[in-house]
Amino acid sequence: MTSATARVGAIVEVAGPEIPALLARVEQRLAQLAAGHGPVLAQHAGATIAAGGKRLRPLLVLLAAGPAQEADEDGLLAAAAAVELVHSATLVHDDVLDAAPLRRGVPTVWSQGGRELALATGDLLFSRAFAELAAAGSLAAVRALSRASSALAEGELAQREDAWNAAVSVARYLHRCELKTARLFEAACELGALAARRSERDVTALGAFGRRIGLAFQLLDDVLDISGPQSVTGKHRGADLLDGTVTLPLILARERDARLCALELRSITAPDQAEALCEAIAASGALDEARSRALAIADEAKAELRALRLADRQRTALELVADSVVARRA
Amino acid sequence: MTSATARVGAIVEVAGPEIPALLARVEQRLAQLAAGHGPVLAQHAGATIAAGGKRLRPLLVLLAAGPAQEADEDGLLAAAAAVELVHSATLVHDDVLDAAPLRRGVPTVWSQGGRELALATGDLLFSRAFAELAAAGSLAAVRALSRASSALAEGELAQREDAWNAAVSVARYLHRCELKTARLFEAACELGALAARRSERDVTALGAFGRRIGLAFQLLDDVLDISGPQSVTGKHRGADLLDGTVTLPLILARERDARLCALELRSITAPDQAEALCEAIAASGALDEARSRALAIADEAKAELRALRLADRQRTALELVADSVVARRA
Repeated sequence: MTSATARVGAIVEVAGPEIPALLARVEQRLAQLAAGHGPVLAQHAGATIAAGGKRLRPLLVLLAAGPAQEADEDGLLAAAAAVELVHSATLVHDDVLDAAPLRRGVPTVWSQGGRELALATGDLLFSRAFAELAAAGSLAAVRALSRASSALAEGELAQREDAWNAAVSVARYLHRCELKTARLFEAACELGALAARRSERDVTALGAFGRRIGLAFQLLDDVLDISGPQSVTGKHRGADLLDGTVTLPLILARERDARLCALELRSITAPDQAEALCEAIAASGALDEARSRALAIADEAKAELRALRLADRQRTALELVADSVVARRA
Repeated sequence: MTSATARVGAIVEVAGPEIPALLARVEQRLAQLAAGHGPVLAQHAGATIAAGGKRLRPLLVLLAAGPAQEADEDGLLAAAAAVELVHSATLVHDDVLDAAPLRRGVPTVWSQGGRELALATGDLLFSRAFAELAAAGSLAAVRALSRASSALAEGELAQREDAWNAAVSVARYLHRCELKTARLFEAACELGALAARRSERDVTALGAFGRRIGLAFQLLDDVLDISGPQSVTGKHRGADLLDGTVTLPLILARERDARLCALELRSITAPDQAEALCEAIAASGALDEARSRALAIADEAKAELRALRLADRQRTALELVADSVVARRA
C-alpha cells in the first residue's frame, strides 16, 4: 500500500500524457472561480480550494471522458471543476456543523471567519458549480450534478438522524454512504462520459462504475477511522465514534462480539475510550470483513467496465482508481 | 395603501385569467418538489414552502413571460418554482445564522430541527431549484439563476461585513441590496422572458425592470423596519438596528441629525432603545426621503418597460407590481 498522492500519480501516469496538463487546467479554473465575488469570499473560497485534496473526483471526470480528442474540452474542464466545487461546498458546510478547527491541516473557513462566512462561502461554491456547468453548456450535466447535490443533502441528514444509534442496519449504513459519497462519484463519471459525448448506455455504465467506487471509498474511509494509525491517517482513531457516527466496522463488530452490543455509544467521550473501542472492533475481525466488502465493491465497479468499449489506457486507469480507493492507508 | 396579499390579488386580476391557474400549478409543483428526498427533509422542506410568502418572485416570472400562448409552459412553471426554491433556501439558511424561532408566524426549520437539519434543508431546496430548471431545459435559465444565487451569497456576506458600521455609505448600502435582493428579482424576470422566448434585448430589459423592482422592494423593507407599526408589520420596530444591520433610513438620518452621528450602534441592545432610535430616525425626515428614493427607483423600473412591446395587460400588471412594492405597509 502506498500514499494516496503516490497512487494518484501512478494513475495519472498510466492514463496518458494529456491528463497532467488537463488536471493543471482544472486547478487554474478552480482558482479563477473562487475570485470575482468580492475580496472576502475570494480569500476564503480560494483558501478552501487551494487546501485541496486528492482531486479524485475531477480525475474521475477526466478518466471517464477518456482520450481528449473525443471530448468537448471546455465542457470537460467545467465538469471537473464543478464536481470539485460541490465537494468543497459540502466540506465547508460540514465544518460549520462540526465546528471543526482544521481540515487537511489547514484552518477551516469556519474557524477563520465564523459561521456566517462559512455558510456564504459554501453557498457561493455551490452556485459557481452550477454556473460553470451552465456556461459550458450541457443540461444533462446540470441534471446529473443537481441529482448528486440533492443526494448529498439527504445523506448529511440521514447521518445526523442515525447519530448515536449503534443498532443501525448494514443496509441503512450502505444507503447513507450512497447518498453522501457515492452519488457524487457517480455524477463525476457521468459528467466525464457526457463531455466525451458517449452513448446513454455508456453514461449509465460509467455512472454505475463511479457509484461503486464512491461506495468502496467511503467504506475504506470508515475502516481507516477505526484502524488508524494516527501517524498515517493524521487523525485520532475513532473520531467517528466520538461523533456518534455509526459505521460498518462497529455494526459488524456488534454481530461478532456480544459485549459490544451492550455498549452505550454516548458513554464514549474521551479519546482513550475511543481508542479502546477501536481495539475491540479490530479484535472482533470486523475491520477485515469491512475491508473485504470494500474490495468486493471495487471488483463490482471494475465489472461494470467490462461491457464498455474503452481505450486500453482509459480502462487501465479506471481499474487503477478502483484498486486505489480500497488499497489506501490514509 | 393596502395589504400585500390584496395587492397581489389586484395584480393577478389585471394580469389575466390564466395567471391564477398558473400560480396554483406553481404551488403544486413546489409541494411535489419538497417530497421525494426522505421523510424528514420532506416534512421540513414542505413546511418551509407551505409557510410561503407573497410568491412575488414566481408572480414576476409569470408576468415577465406574458400571455401563456407564447410561452413554453413547462419551462415557465419550472422557472417560477426554481426562483421560489432559491428564495426559500436562503431564508432557511438565514434562520440558522439568526437563530430565528419564527418566520411568517411559523416555527423555523432551525427551531424545529436544529442547525444540521436547517442547513441540509436549505441545501436541498437549492439543489432542487437547479434540478428543476435543468429538467425543463434551458441553459440560459440555469445561467441566470446561478448568477443570482452567487450574488445572494455575496450579499449575505457583505451585510455581515458591514454589521454595526453606521458610517457605511449609501452606495455601499445600495450595492448590498442589489446583491441580496435585486439580483434574484432580475433573474425572475429574465427567466420569465426566456420561457416566453423573447429576444435577448427584451430579456435584458425585463431583467433590468426586475432588478429595479427588487431594489425598491428592499428599500421599502428597510423603511418598514423603522416605521412599523408592529401591529401592521408583525415585527418589533428596529429589528435591523438590534441586529447591527445599517440601512438607508439610519444612513440618511445620520446626515440630518448630528446627535445620531455620535451614536454607537452596539449600545442599542433593548427593544425600547431601538424604538426610541426609530423615533429619532423618523423625526429627522429620513424615512420620507428613503421612501421617495424607493418610489423613484420604482419609476425607473416602469421606464425600463417603455421601449418594450408588451401586451397591454402584461404592461399594466408589471406596472402594478412596481407600484405595489413601494406602496405596501407590511
